[in-house]
Parts: sequence; structure tokens; C-alpha cells
Amino acid sequence: MAERATCFAVATSSTQRARLSGVFAPVLTPFDSKLQPDAPRFARHCKWLLSQGCRGLAVFGTTSEANSLSVEEREALLASLLASGIPAESLLPGTGCCAIPDTVRLTRAAVRAGCAGVLVLPPFYYKGVSEEGLFRAFAEVIERVGDSRLRVYLYHIPPIAQVGFSAKLVERLLAAYPGTVAGMKDSSNDIANTRAMIDAFAKDGFEVFSGSERFLLENLRRGGAGCITATGNVNPAAIHRLYQEWQSPQAEELQARINAVRSAFEKRPVIPALKAVIAHYAKDAAWRTVRPPLVELAEADMRPLLDELEKAGFEMRP
Amino acid sequence: MAERATCFAVATSSTQRARLSGVFAPVLTPFDSKLQPDAPRFARHCKWLLSQGCRGLAVFGTTSEANSLSVEEREALLASLLASGIPAESLLPGTGCCAIPDTVRLTRAAVRAGCAGVLVLPPFYYKGVSEEGLFRAFAEVIERVGDSRLRVYLYHIPPIAQVGFSAKLVERLLAAYPGTVAGMKDSSNDIANTRAMIDAFAKDGFEVFSGSERFLLENLRRGGAGCITATGNVNPAAIHRLYQEWQSPQAEELQARINAVRSAFEKRPVIPALKAVIAHYAKDAAWRTVRPPLVELAEADMRPLLDELEKAGFEMRP
Repeated sequence: MAERATCFAVATSSTQRARLSGVFAPVLTPFDSKLQPDAPRFARHCKWLLSQGCRGLAVFGTTSEANSLSVEEREALLASLLASGIPAESLLPGTGCCAIPDTVRLTRAAVRAGCAGVLVLPPFYYKGVSEEGLFRAFAEVIERVGDSRLRVYLYHIPPIAQVGFSAKLVERLLAAYPGTVAGMKDSSNDIANTRAMIDAFAKDGFEVFSGSERFLLENLRRGGAGCITATGNVNPAAIHRLYQEWQSPQAEELQARINAVRSAFEKRPVIPALKAVIAHYAKDAAWRTVRPPLVELAEADMRPLLDELEKAGFEMRP
Repeated sequence: MAERATCFAVATSSTQRARLSGVFAPVLTPFDSKLQPDAPRFARHCKWLLSQGCRGLAVFGTTSEANSLSVEEREALLASLLASGIPAESLLPGTGCCAIPDTVRLTRAAVRAGCAGVLVLPPFYYKGVSEEGLFRAFAEVIERVGDSRLRVYLYHIPPIAQVGFSAKLVERLLAAYPGTVAGMKDSSNDIANTRAMIDAFAKDGFEVFSGSERFLLENLRRGGAGCITATGNVNPAAIHRLYQEWQSPQAEELQARINAVRSAFEKRPVIPALKAVIAHYAKDAAWRTVRPPLVELAEADMRPLLDELEKAGFEMRP
């Protein structure tokens, strides 16, 4: 009980400092039958997500199949979102590529458009690279962009990128670029790592988002900023409700409910399953399409997934 | 003895069929002090490699830091090489990116330029992808390029890309695109895999290159096409000699000698070490530069590396 009270105190003071906090969706990218990005469907989905309580849109993340998009396709999609009326301050686009010039180009475009920040993967082709090499890669991007409006969120997703951020690296980046290095998305699936990042850096205003709503309550109690989560694409209102009511007596129950929905997706290839569920509820089969190397959800997997979701009390009206 | 004779027979018949065979260098990419690709140094190095017996130049590979280059930078470097007089038929550029549009764009440019083939990484961001997804990714590239001159070499490097080619996937690709799917670079460092690929597919003209000269003799005896090897950047003549004399009595001795040189590099970060050695022998410090996330070889590592190389009988006159 004493420990919990302490956590609450930390969380409250951190929440007050946080510039960005809440639930972000790493927005799925719809493709047409020729595998081209479908800008109108994308904008419609973004608007629906904001209407459901998402604080923002982490477009061009892993769930967005962003690494299956060219730099030009990302630029064009960002421009089309802005043209459709999505507020720039709701956007946290992924801009981290293997090549520094690509990361610089996408980051610059996001900053100039007024985006809230950028979510930046480390260069992920070479494995086992040094802390010094990763520090230099980020320093090079930040200095080439050279804009005081830049807010960098470090995208830590070792299960996929295989290259991540050590506490030492975060410390060096924060020391070198205070105010610019603004936070992290921790998709390590390791709550101990999230806790360590929050404990070490949240006091300096560093905003730590969990990469799954499964950790949302613990993230907020510890002093984190919220979550950026794939299932935010389909279950945003329920996740947002926990974000709002995390200090209420029903918080544990809300957490359990969103966990049950997440579990149904985690048993399947997550991106194809999310797209298939949107296709089902929106009665719009085009949503099922993914770009290779991903493969759309098998028809046979659909009914069991919908049954499980229904059992978990899931509903969606996209 | 009987087994060896059989191997020779297979090798000979396969060598006769092979369209491409020999030693290829995955050419290092020099950068200037602003980390920009240095086209004149690059062309000079390419010409030196060809003068030393390299059959061809696998530009834009892993050793080339190609994934640290933008698509535009690769296009510009390819054009500059051709303009400098490097024959297109000596070129086997790497064109595989995470995003299909990028792979298509680079592959198309290579085919139109008359390159001997393209070396294609699988899309490497998502891990644990299915054989079906990888098949679709390659099918999409081959069909979008839609050019009968296209020759695709599959770039199998699971230690870095983490995504590779199963025998089943190669079989499917060969069946769907015979004549277009032309071979493989096997950088698995697993000679059993190389043997299996040669045994299964070399009879159909599929050219299997080892990703290290350490396996060159065994590759050729088994019926493979040669090697595409990082150390080809510094030791091409000795490796080429083994390629030429693999059926001679001194083959084992030649193999042992090039292995000793390779060992000196393998104990260090290979790309920075190769660049540092070229910088040393060419008396051109600019060659040391690498792009982040790589870091140049530490000064303190230089003397021990040179000593080991000297002991291995290494010399280089770039």
C-alpha cells in the first residue's frame, strides 16, 4: 500500500510534466487491390481513432507496415492526412530508417508540418552495433534536421528491430540533446525495462510509452505517459477509458477487459488480424489487404477470432 | 577418393553451365568527411578490384553499407560507376530493400543499365515471416520489373537480415520464374546449407556463391559458382588464384593462406577493419570513414591487425 501510494505520487507529478500522454494508435495502412496505399481510407480511419479518444496517431509504425513503404509513399500519405484536416499536433509519425538520409528527410518533413514529434527506430540492418554507433546515428539525424521544434521519441522494439536502446544510450542522448530527445516507445514487452526507463528518466520529463495496453495501468502508476498500441486501431475507446480512469477503483477491471481483447489478437499474426477485424466490422473487404512479406489473415482463422472477441465483450463501429 | 571424384564431375558439369562464376567483391563504399558517398574513390576501387581478377562487383551489399544509403544515393553511385567506364556486365548490385517499391526501382535501374544480375535481400524488417509472404514479395518484384533480362540472385544472410530462404522457398521461386531466379549468395556461414542448395538446384543452372572465401574450395568441388566475399575488397588476387587453381595439387595450401588473412579480419569489426586496411595501404585516411551506426576501427586496433596480416603473408597495392 505504501509502495502504491508512492507510485501514485510519482505518476501525478510526471503526468503534470508530460507534454504528450495518453493512448496513441500506430495506425494501420490500408492498401488497394494493386497494393498501393489508400489515402482516403487511411484518413477516415485516423479520424475515427481520434473520435474514439486517441490522443494521437503514431502513423508509420510497425503496425502500419511503414517499413514496407517507400520514403515517397510515407511523404505522400503524411501530406494527404494533413490535407484531409487531421491536426498536425495529433501526429507522431515513424521516421526511422536504416539510412540516415532517409530518416533525416522524413523527420524534417514531419517537423516542418508541425507534428507533435517523431518516433524513430534505430538503424536496424546491422546487428550488434555499438552504443557509440547508435549515438552517432541519432546525433547525425538531430543535427542535420537542426530544428528546435524537433521532438524525438526513441522506438525500442528489440523483438523486431533486433537493435535497441540501452539505458546508457538514452542517458547520453538526453545529455546531448535535452528538450529534443523527448521520450520512448518501449515495445520490448519487458515491463522491467519500462520501469527502469521511467525510474531513470521520467523525472526529467522523458515520456515513456508502453508498446502494449497490457502494461498501461502499471505504466501510469509508475509515472509513464501512456501507450502506443497496435490494438488501439480497433479498441481505442476501451483503452482510452482506462487511461482516463486509472486512479479509479475499477482500473484493474478495465485493464483485465482490454487484456482479454488483446489476447485474441496476440494468438494470430497481429497486423493481418487487425485488418481483417476492421474489414469485418466496417463491411469493407479491401481492409484485409497487407503488403508482402505479410500475408492476409486466412479465412478459416476469422470465425474463431470473432468468436473470441465477442466473448471478450469487444465491439467496434468504425 | 571415390566421393571426391564424384564431386569433381558434378563441379565440372556445373561450371560449364554457370553463366556467372568466380570471385566477386561486395565493394566497400567510401564516404567523404561529411559522410557523403565518394564516387571517384568508389570507381577507382572498383577498377582495382577488376584488375586483380575479380569476375565482378557486388556493389551495394552488406559490406558496402548499402542499407545505410538512400535509394537515390545507390542510383547515383551506379550511374557514376557506369560513367567511369566500369562495364555493366561486371556489376551485380544489391537491390533488396524492406519496401517493394524501393526494390523494384533499384532492380529496374540495374536491369536497364545491363548489369549481370541483382543480389536481392528479402524484406528484412518483419521477423518470422512466412514462406508464402516471402514468395509473394519476390513475385511482386519480378513481375513489376517485368523484364526478360532480369537475373535475380537470392541474398541469404540470416545472421544479419534474420530472414532467409528455405530450400522450399527457392524451389517455389525457381519453378515460378525459371531463368530469372539465377542463383544465391549463401552468407549463412553454414556449409551444410550451401551443400544442400548446390545439391538441390545447381543441376538446373542455379549458381550458388559462398559468402566467404573460407568455403571457396568446397563450394567449387561441390559444384558451386564461387564466392562473393568481404575480404575480396583487400585480398582479391589470392582468392582469385584459388578460384583458378582449385583443381591443382596446391589448392588446399592456397585455401589455408587466404583463410589466415580472413581470420585477421574476422576478429575485428569487419567493415571498419577492411576500410582501415585500405586507408593504410593506399595512404588515404579518408577510406577509414564509415556511416553510423558503424564506427571506424579504433587506432589502437590497427597495429595488431597489420601485424597479423603481415604474418599471414598479406600484401596489397591498391
